[in-house]
Amino acid sequence: MPAYDPDNIFAKILRGEIPAHTVYEDDHTLAFMDVMPQGEGHTLVIPKAPARGLLDAEPESLAALIRSVQVVGRAVTAAFDAEGLTIFQYNEPAGGQTVFHLHVHIIPRREGVPLKRHEGGLADPALLAAQAERIRAALKG
Amino acid sequence: MPAYDPDNIFAKILRGEIPAHTVYEDDHTLAFMDVMPQGEGHTLVIPKAPARGLLDAEPESLAALIRSVQVVGRAVTAAFDAEGLTIFQYNEPAGGQTVFHLHVHIIPRREGVPLKRHEGGLADPALLAAQAERIRAALKG
Repeated sequence: MPAYDPDNIFAKILRGEIPAHTVYEDDHTLAFMDVMPQGEGHTLVIPKAPARGLLDAEPESLAALIRSVQVVGRAVTAAFDAEGLTIFQYNEPAGGQTVFHLHVHIIPRREGVPLKRHEGGLADPALLAAQAERIRAALKG
Repeated sequence: MPAYDPDNIFAKILRGEIPAHTVYEDDHTLAFMDVMPQGEGHTLVIPKAPARGLLDAEPESLAALIRSVQVVGRAVTAAFDAEGLTIFQYNEPAGGQTVFHLHVHIIPRREGVPLKRHEGGLADPALLAAQAERIRAALKG
């Protein structure tokens, strides 16, 4: 497995060098909207500690990550009246990974609404901002 | 979300009422081969504590689960010379869930080998037994 590259796009988001539609943050994790959503409310959760993927992450970082996935999962379920959640976590190009900082996809689902392709294009930033606001409101609720 | 049903198939595996090709077990988790694999070495990790999905699991159970996913993920990578791992976790029918005990799919991946459909049929038990032995050997190595 290649070494962690600190110039990956999520590392830049963590450093505040590029913007993101953030929905949740704690000491160990950050959650924000996926800009190429496979469904309404598609959110990513990442650890703040550098890790390329599942296999090189510290156990404490993974524990914080999965806890935040649950917290954000509950919030997106409420925010989008979801009937289910689909969780993806990809490792290395062969596993589907395209950004090489460990991340977990949370996609709210409703019956009869298929997933869109991840490469389906960039979402409207105003739409993502509105969705992020719904999730943040659910986290406060 | 419906209540946890203790008669689900993974609860029966945990109670030893039906067999499974087990590859890993600790105080809080169990890992075994998926009988409808989407790829060679497709393994499931489940918590021993009852939980229907991500949202109703105790944080301590989730922390143990993700740690075991990492342990088993390393082992299947070694056992199947994987170039990547694809991780799925489905919640509720709308999210893709078909067995209603929290579980994480770990699928070893190689470039150019697409995932098979999950409903592609039951795998040969002898093949699963051999794959489980390779993973157990990797865990010892």
